Amino acid sequence: MAAAGQHRDALLAASVRLFRQKGYAATGLAEILAESGAPKGSLYHYFPGGKTEIGAAAVQRAGETVARTLAQLSAETDGPGDLLARYLDMMAGWMAQSDYRDGSPITTTLLETAQEHEAIRMAGAAAFAHWAAILEASAVQAGVPADRAAALARFAVAALEGAVIQCRVSRDDAPLKLAAAELRALYEAARKG
Amino acid sequence: MAAAGQHRDALLAASVRLFRQKGYAATGLAEILAESGAPKGSLYHYFPGGKTEIGAAAVQRAGETVARTLAQLSAETDGPGDLLARYLDMMAGWMAQSDYRDGSPITTTLLETAQEHEAIRMAGAAAFAHWAAILEASAVQAGVPADRAAALARFAVAALEGAVIQCRVSRDDAPLKLAAAELRALYEAARKG
Repeated sequence: MAAAGQHRDALLAASVRLFRQKGYAATGLAEILAESGAPKGSLYHYFPGGKTEIGAAAVQRAGETVARTLAQLSAETDGPGDLLARYLDMMAGWMAQSDYRDGSPITTTLLETAQEHEAIRMAGAAAFAHWAAILEASAVQAGVPADRAAALARFAVAALEGAVIQCRVSRDDAPLKLAAAELRALYEAARKG
Repeated sequence: MAAAGQHRDALLAASVRLFRQKGYAATGLAEILAESGAPKGSLYHYFPGGKTEIGAAAVQRAGETVARTLAQLSAETDGPGDLLARYLDMMAGWMAQSDYRDGSPITTTLLETAQEHEAIRMAGAAAFAHWAAILEASAVQAGVPADRAAALARFAVAALEGAVIQCRVSRDDAPLKLAAAELRALYEAARKG
Protein backbone atom coordinates (compact mmCIF):
# COMPACT_ATOMS: atom_id res chain seq x y z
CA MET A 1 0.00 0.00 0.00
CA ALA A 2 1.32 3.43 -0.96
CA ALA A 3 2.05 6.02 1.72
CA ALA A 4 -0.85 8.11 0.44
CA GLY A 5 -3.30 5.25 0.95
CA GLN A 6 -1.87 4.71 4.41
CA HIS A 7 -2.87 8.23 5.41
CA ARG A 8 -6.42 7.71 4.22
CA ASP A 9 -6.43 4.44 6.10
CA ALA A 10 -5.11 6.01 9.29
CA LEU A 11 -7.69 8.81 9.11
CA LEU A 12 -10.50 6.29 8.76
CA ALA A 13 -9.21 4.03 11.52
CA ALA A 14 -8.97 7.03 13.86
CA SER A 15 -12.48 8.15 12.90
CA VAL A 16 -13.94 4.71 13.60
CA ARG A 17 -12.27 4.63 17.05
CA LEU A 18 -13.36 8.14 18.03
CA PHE A 19 -16.92 7.90 16.68
CA ARG A 20 -17.38 4.57 18.49
CA GLN A 21 -16.30 5.91 21.85
CA LYS A 22 -17.45 9.55 21.79
CA GLY A 23 -20.00 9.74 19.04
CA TYR A 24 -20.04 11.86 15.89
CA ALA A 25 -20.95 15.31 17.17
CA ALA A 26 -18.39 15.29 19.99
CA THR A 27 -15.52 14.30 17.68
CA GLY A 28 -13.75 17.18 15.95
CA LEU A 29 -11.79 17.02 12.70
CA ALA A 30 -8.65 18.27 14.49
CA GLU A 31 -8.99 15.36 16.92
CA ILE A 32 -9.28 12.85 14.08
CA LEU A 33 -6.19 14.31 12.47
CA ALA A 34 -4.19 14.20 15.71
CA GLU A 35 -5.30 10.65 16.54
CA SER A 36 -4.47 9.43 13.03
CA GLY A 37 -0.96 10.89 12.85
CA ALA A 38 -1.65 11.82 9.21
CA PRO A 39 -0.30 15.13 7.87
CA LYS A 40 -2.51 18.18 8.09
CA GLY A 41 -3.46 18.55 4.45
CA SER A 42 -4.45 14.91 4.06
CA LEU A 43 -7.87 15.26 5.65
CA TYR A 44 -9.39 17.53 3.02
CA HIS A 45 -7.34 15.86 0.31
CA TYR A 46 -8.95 12.48 0.91
CA PHE A 47 -12.27 13.76 2.22
CA PRO A 48 -13.15 16.98 0.38
CA GLY A 49 -16.70 16.61 1.67
CA GLY A 50 -15.40 17.08 5.22
CA LYS A 51 -16.92 15.48 8.27
CA THR A 52 -20.01 14.05 6.59
CA GLU A 53 -17.85 12.26 4.03
CA ILE A 54 -15.58 10.91 6.76
CA GLY A 55 -18.66 9.83 8.73
CA ALA A 56 -20.04 7.85 5.79
CA ALA A 57 -16.65 6.30 4.99
CA ALA A 58 -16.08 5.39 8.66
CA VAL A 59 -19.49 3.69 8.91
CA GLN A 60 -18.78 1.83 5.66
CA ARG A 61 -15.36 0.73 6.85
CA ALA A 62 -16.55 -0.36 10.30
CA GLY A 63 -19.45 -2.20 8.70
CA GLU A 64 -17.07 -4.08 6.41
CA THR A 65 -14.80 -5.02 9.32
CA VAL A 66 -17.75 -6.55 11.18
CA ALA A 67 -18.91 -8.32 8.00
CA ARG A 68 -15.44 -9.82 7.50
CA THR A 69 -15.44 -11.19 11.04
CA LEU A 70 -18.96 -12.60 10.65
CA ALA A 71 -18.03 -14.25 7.34
CA GLN A 72 -14.96 -15.84 8.90
CA LEU A 73 -17.00 -17.12 11.86
CA SER A 74 -19.61 -18.41 9.46
CA ALA A 75 -16.97 -20.55 7.77
CA GLU A 76 -15.83 -21.90 11.14
CA THR A 77 -19.20 -22.72 12.68
CA ASP A 78 -22.11 -25.06 12.06
CA GLY A 79 -24.88 -22.49 11.96
CA PRO A 80 -26.09 -19.06 13.03
CA GLY A 81 -26.59 -20.05 16.69
CA ASP A 82 -22.91 -20.90 17.09
CA LEU A 83 -21.83 -18.04 14.85
CA LEU A 84 -23.69 -15.47 16.96
CA ALA A 85 -22.54 -17.02 20.23
CA ARG A 86 -18.93 -16.77 19.04
CA TYR A 87 -19.36 -13.21 17.78
CA LEU A 88 -21.19 -11.97 20.86
CA ASP A 89 -18.52 -13.59 23.02
CA MET A 90 -15.84 -11.67 21.10
CA MET A 91 -17.86 -8.44 21.46
CA ALA A 92 -18.19 -9.05 25.21
CA GLY A 93 -14.41 -9.44 25.46
CA TRP A 94 -13.71 -6.24 23.50
CA MET A 95 -16.24 -4.27 25.51
CA ALA A 96 -14.88 -5.45 28.86
CA GLN A 97 -11.31 -4.73 27.72
CA SER A 98 -12.27 -1.15 26.84
CA ASP A 99 -14.00 -0.76 30.20
CA TYR A 100 -17.28 -0.59 28.23
CA ARG A 101 -16.18 2.47 26.26
CA ASP A 102 -16.38 0.56 23.00
CA GLY A 103 -19.75 -0.44 21.72
CA SER A 104 -21.11 -0.81 18.23
CA PRO A 105 -18.76 0.98 15.83
CA ILE A 106 -21.68 2.53 13.95
CA THR A 107 -24.79 2.86 16.12
CA THR A 108 -23.99 6.10 17.94
CA THR A 109 -23.00 7.88 14.72
CA LEU A 110 -26.09 6.56 12.92
CA LEU A 111 -28.47 7.70 15.63
CA GLU A 112 -26.89 11.14 15.69
CA THR A 113 -26.85 11.66 11.95
CA ALA A 114 -29.46 9.42 10.27
CA GLN A 115 -31.89 12.26 9.78
CA GLU A 116 -29.46 14.89 8.57
CA HIS A 117 -26.82 13.07 6.54
CA GLU A 118 -28.24 10.74 3.92
CA ALA A 119 -24.80 9.37 2.93
CA ILE A 120 -24.12 8.18 6.48
CA ARG A 121 -27.58 6.67 6.81
CA MET A 122 -27.13 4.78 3.51
CA ALA A 123 -23.76 3.43 4.66
CA GLY A 124 -25.44 2.19 7.85
CA ALA A 125 -28.30 0.55 5.97
CA ALA A 126 -25.77 -1.23 3.72
CA ALA A 127 -23.78 -2.45 6.74
CA PHE A 128 -26.84 -3.84 8.52
CA ALA A 129 -28.00 -5.53 5.29
CA HIS A 130 -24.57 -7.07 4.73
CA TRP A 131 -24.42 -8.51 8.27
CA ALA A 132 -27.96 -9.87 7.92
CA ALA A 133 -27.09 -11.50 4.56
CA ILE A 134 -24.22 -13.43 6.18
CA LEU A 135 -26.46 -14.64 9.02
CA GLU A 136 -29.18 -15.54 6.54
CA ALA A 137 -26.83 -17.66 4.44
CA SER A 138 -25.52 -19.43 7.53
CA ALA A 139 -29.08 -20.24 8.62
CA VAL A 140 -30.15 -21.53 5.22
CA GLN A 141 -27.08 -23.76 5.12
CA ALA A 142 -28.02 -25.05 8.59
CA GLY A 143 -31.47 -26.05 7.38
CA VAL A 144 -33.60 -23.07 8.39
CA PRO A 145 -36.34 -22.36 5.81
CA ALA A 146 -35.49 -19.37 3.61
CA ASP A 147 -38.23 -17.01 4.82
CA ARG A 148 -37.46 -17.71 8.48
CA ALA A 149 -33.73 -17.33 7.78
CA ALA A 150 -34.28 -13.87 6.30
CA ALA A 151 -36.53 -12.66 9.12
CA LEU A 152 -34.35 -14.06 11.91
CA ALA A 153 -31.22 -12.54 10.39
CA ARG A 154 -32.72 -9.05 10.49
CA PHE A 155 -34.08 -9.61 13.99
CA ALA A 156 -30.68 -10.91 15.17
CA VAL A 157 -28.91 -7.77 13.91
CA ALA A 158 -31.41 -5.60 15.79
CA ALA A 159 -31.10 -7.70 18.96
CA LEU A 160 -27.31 -7.59 18.75
CA GLU A 161 -27.28 -3.78 18.46
CA GLY A 162 -29.76 -3.53 21.31
CA ALA A 163 -27.72 -5.84 23.53
CA VAL A 164 -24.60 -3.72 22.96
CA ILE A 165 -26.51 -0.64 24.14
CA GLN A 166 -27.61 -2.47 27.27
CA CYS A 167 -24.02 -3.55 27.99
CA ARG A 168 -22.71 0.00 27.66
CA VAL A 169 -25.31 1.15 30.18
CA SER A 170 -25.09 -1.79 32.59
CA ARG A 171 -21.30 -2.05 32.23
CA ASP A 172 -21.37 -5.84 32.23
CA ASP A 173 -21.71 -8.47 29.52
CA ALA A 174 -24.93 -10.09 30.72
CA PRO A 175 -27.08 -8.56 27.92
CA LEU A 176 -24.78 -10.02 25.22
CA LYS A 177 -24.82 -13.47 26.85
CA LEU A 178 -28.60 -13.30 27.15
CA ALA A 179 -29.01 -12.29 23.49
CA ALA A 180 -26.75 -15.14 22.37
CA ALA A 181 -28.86 -17.66 24.32
CA GLU A 182 -32.22 -16.35 23.12
CA LEU A 183 -31.10 -16.11 19.48
CA ARG A 184 -29.69 -19.63 19.62
CA ALA A 185 -33.05 -20.92 20.91
CA LEU A 186 -34.90 -19.07 18.15
CA TYR A 187 -32.62 -20.63 15.52
CA GLU A 188 -32.99 -24.10 17.02
CA ALA A 189 -36.78 -23.76 16.90
CA ALA A 190 -36.63 -22.51 13.32
CA ARG A 191 -34.49 -25.45 12.23
CA LYS A 192 -36.98 -27.92 13.65
CA GLY A 193 -40.15 -26.01 12.77
CA MET B 1 -48.59 22.92 39.47
CA ALA B 2 -46.89 26.22 40.34
CA ALA B 3 -45.46 28.43 37.58
CA ALA B 4 -41.96 27.61 38.83
CA GLY B 5 -42.53 23.88 38.39
CA GLN B 6 -43.90 24.54 34.93
CA HIS B 7 -40.60 26.09 33.85
CA ARG B 8 -38.68 23.07 35.06
CA ASP B 9 -41.18 20.89 33.28
CA ALA B 10 -40.89 22.84 30.03
CA LEU B 11 -37.09 22.68 30.17
CA LEU B 12 -37.17 18.92 30.61
CA ALA B 13 -39.77 18.37 27.89
CA ALA B 14 -37.66 20.44 25.48
CA SER B 15 -34.53 18.51 26.45
CA VAL B 16 -36.20 15.15 25.84
CA ARG B 17 -37.39 16.28 22.38
CA LEU B 18 -34.03 17.72 21.32
CA PHE B 19 -31.89 14.88 22.72
CA ARG B 20 -34.13 12.32 21.00
CA GLN B 21 -33.86 13.94 17.59
CA LYS B 22 -30.35 15.43 17.58
CA GLY B 23 -28.51 13.67 20.38
CA TYR B 24 -26.84 15.10 23.47
CA ALA B 25 -23.63 16.63 22.10
CA ALA B 26 -25.34 18.48 19.25
CA THR B 27 -27.94 20.09 21.55
CA GLY B 28 -26.88 23.35 23.20
CA LEU B 29 -28.24 24.81 26.42
CA ALA B 30 -29.34 27.97 24.56
CA GLU B 31 -31.37 25.77 22.21
CA ILE B 32 -33.05 23.97 25.11
CA LEU B 33 -33.92 27.33 26.67
CA ALA B 34 -35.34 28.69 23.39
CA GLU B 35 -37.34 25.52 22.67
CA SER B 36 -38.77 25.47 26.21
CA GLY B 37 -39.92 29.07 26.31
CA ALA B 38 -38.71 29.26 29.94
CA PRO B 39 -37.06 32.46 31.19
CA LYS B 40 -33.30 32.76 30.91
CA GLY B 41 -32.36 32.35 34.56
CA SER B 42 -34.48 29.25 35.03
CA LEU B 43 -32.02 26.82 33.48
CA TYR B 44 -29.27 27.20 36.06
CA HIS B 45 -31.84 27.75 38.80
CA TYR B 46 -33.37 24.31 38.28
CA PHE B 47 -30.26 22.58 36.99
CA PRO B 48 -27.23 24.04 38.76
CA GLY B 49 -25.22 21.07 37.51
CA GLY B 50 -25.75 22.30 33.94
CA LYS B 51 -26.03 20.03 30.94
CA THR B 52 -25.08 16.77 32.70
CA GLU B 53 -27.81 17.32 35.28
CA ILE B 54 -30.35 18.10 32.56
CA GLY B 55 -29.19 15.00 30.66
CA ALA B 56 -29.76 12.74 33.65
CA ALA B 57 -33.13 14.34 34.45
CA ALA B 58 -34.24 14.10 30.80
CA VAL B 59 -33.32 10.40 30.61
CA GLN B 60 -35.16 9.80 33.89
CA ARG B 61 -38.23 11.66 32.71
CA ALA B 62 -38.32 9.97 29.30
CA GLY B 63 -37.82 6.60 30.98
CA GLU B 64 -40.79 7.25 33.29
CA THR B 65 -42.98 8.30 30.37
CA VAL B 66 -42.26 5.02 28.57
CA ALA B 67 -42.82 3.06 31.80
CA ARG B 68 -46.20 4.76 32.30
CA THR B 69 -47.29 3.77 28.81
CA LEU B 70 -46.07 0.19 29.26
CA ALA B 71 -47.91 -0.09 32.59
CA GLN B 72 -51.10 1.18 31.04
CA LEU B 73 -50.81 -1.27 28.13
CA SER B 74 -50.07 -4.04 30.59
CA ALA B 75 -53.39 -3.37 32.33
CA GLU B 76 -55.21 -3.45 28.97
CA THR B 77 -53.64 -6.59 27.48
CA ASP B 78 -53.54 -10.33 28.17
CA GLY B 79 -49.79 -10.76 28.27
CA PRO B 80 -46.40 -9.49 27.12
CA GLY B 81 -46.85 -10.60 23.50
CA ASP B 82 -49.88 -8.36 23.06
CA LEU B 83 -48.40 -5.64 25.23
CA LEU B 84 -45.27 -5.43 23.08
CA ALA B 85 -47.22 -5.64 19.83
CA ARG B 86 -49.37 -2.69 20.97
CA TYR B 87 -46.36 -0.69 22.15
CA LEU B 88 -44.26 -1.34 19.05
CA ASP B 89 -47.24 -0.41 16.91
CA MET B 90 -47.50 2.91 18.75
CA MET B 91 -43.74 3.46 18.34
CA ALA B 92 -44.02 2.73 14.62
CA GLY B 93 -46.78 5.34 14.32
CA TRP B 94 -44.78 8.00 16.20
CA MET B 95 -41.67 7.29 14.17
CA ALA B 96 -43.48 7.49 10.84
CA GLN B 97 -45.24 10.70 11.91
CA SER B 98 -41.89 12.32 12.74
CA ASP B 99 -40.49 11.18 9.37
CA TYR B 100 -38.22 8.84 11.38
CA ARG B 101 -36.57 11.70 13.27
CA ASP B 102 -37.87 10.40 16.58
CA GLY B 103 -36.42 7.19 17.93
CA SER B 104 -35.80 6.01 21.45
CA PRO B 105 -35.93 9.03 23.77
CA ILE B 106 -32.85 7.85 25.64
CA THR B 107 -30.59 5.64 23.50
CA THR B 108 -28.67 8.32 21.59
CA THR B 109 -27.91 10.29 24.75
CA LEU B 110 -26.90 7.14 26.62
CA LEU B 111 -24.50 5.98 23.90
CA GLU B 112 -22.92 9.43 23.74
CA THR B 113 -22.51 9.88 27.49
CA ALA B 114 -22.49 6.48 29.25
CA GLN B 115 -18.75 6.50 29.69
CA GLU B 116 -18.33 10.09 30.82
CA HIS B 117 -21.40 10.96 32.84
CA GLU B 118 -22.24 8.44 35.54
CA ALA B 119 -25.48 10.18 36.53
CA ILE B 120 -26.86 9.85 33.00
CA ARG B 121 -25.78 6.22 32.75
CA MET B 122 -27.48 5.40 36.08
CA ALA B 123 -30.70 7.09 34.93
CA GLY B 124 -30.58 4.93 31.80
CA ALA B 125 -29.97 1.73 33.73
CA ALA B 126 -32.93 2.55 35.99
CA ALA B 127 -35.18 3.21 32.98
CA PHE B 128 -34.29 -0.08 31.28
CA ALA B 129 -34.78 -1.98 34.55
CA HIS B 130 -38.17 -0.36 35.11
CA TRP B 131 -39.40 -1.25 31.61
CA ALA B 132 -38.15 -4.82 32.03
CA ALA B 133 -39.91 -5.14 35.41
CA ILE B 134 -43.26 -4.25 33.81
CA LEU B 135 -42.76 -6.80 31.03
CA GLU B 136 -41.66 -9.41 33.55
CA ALA B 137 -44.77 -8.94 35.69
CA SER B 138 -46.98 -9.16 32.63
CA ALA B 139 -45.30 -12.42 31.60
CA VAL B 140 -45.58 -14.00 35.04
CA GLN B 141 -49.25 -13.10 35.15
CA ALA B 142 -49.66 -14.73 31.72
CA GLY B 143 -48.17 -17.99 32.99
CA VAL B 144 -44.52 -17.68 31.95
CA PRO B 145 -42.17 -19.25 34.55
CA ALA B 146 -40.43 -16.60 36.66
CA ASP B 147 -36.87 -17.18 35.43
CA ARG B 148 -37.94 -17.13 31.76
CA ALA B 149 -40.06 -14.05 32.41
CA ALA B 150 -37.06 -12.18 33.81
CA ALA B 151 -34.70 -13.17 30.98
CA LEU B 152 -37.22 -12.50 28.22
CA ALA B 153 -38.07 -9.09 29.66
CA ARG B 154 -34.45 -7.98 29.49
CA PHE B 155 -34.03 -9.45 26.02
CA ALA B 156 -37.25 -7.75 24.84
CA VAL B 157 -35.99 -4.33 26.00
CA ALA B 158 -32.73 -4.88 24.10
CA ALA B 159 -34.57 -6.07 20.98
CA LEU B 160 -36.93 -3.11 21.16
CA GLU B 161 -34.05 -0.61 21.34
CA GLY B 162 -32.29 -2.41 18.51
CA ALA B 163 -35.40 -2.40 16.32
CA VAL B 164 -35.81 1.35 16.81
CA ILE B 165 -32.23 1.87 15.58
CA GLN B 166 -32.94 -0.23 12.50
CA CYS B 167 -36.09 1.79 11.77
CA ARG B 168 -34.26 5.09 12.01
CA VAL B 169 -31.72 3.81 9.50
CA SER B 170 -34.13 2.01 7.14
CA ARG B 171 -36.78 4.74 7.46
CA ASP B 172 -39.60 2.23 7.57
CA ASP B 173 -41.36 0.33 10.33
CA ALA B 174 -40.50 -3.21 9.21
CA PRO B 175 -37.93 -3.79 12.00
CA LEU B 176 -40.50 -2.92 14.70
CA LYS B 177 -43.12 -5.22 13.14
CA LEU B 178 -40.54 -8.01 12.90
CA ALA B 179 -39.46 -7.56 16.53
CA ALA B 180 -43.09 -7.65 17.69
CA ALA B 181 -43.66 -10.95 15.83
CA GLU B 182 -40.46 -12.63 17.05
CA LEU B 183 -40.98 -11.55 20.66
CA ARG B 184 -44.58 -12.75 20.60
CA ALA B 185 -43.39 -16.16 19.37
CA LEU B 186 -40.76 -16.31 22.11
CA TYR B 187 -43.37 -15.51 24.75
CA GLU B 188 -45.80 -18.08 23.32
CA ALA B 189 -43.09 -20.75 23.48
CA ALA B 190 -42.18 -19.73 27.05
CA ARG B 191 -45.80 -19.96 28.17
CA LYS B 192 -46.10 -23.51 26.84
CA GLY B 193 -42.58 -24.66 27.72
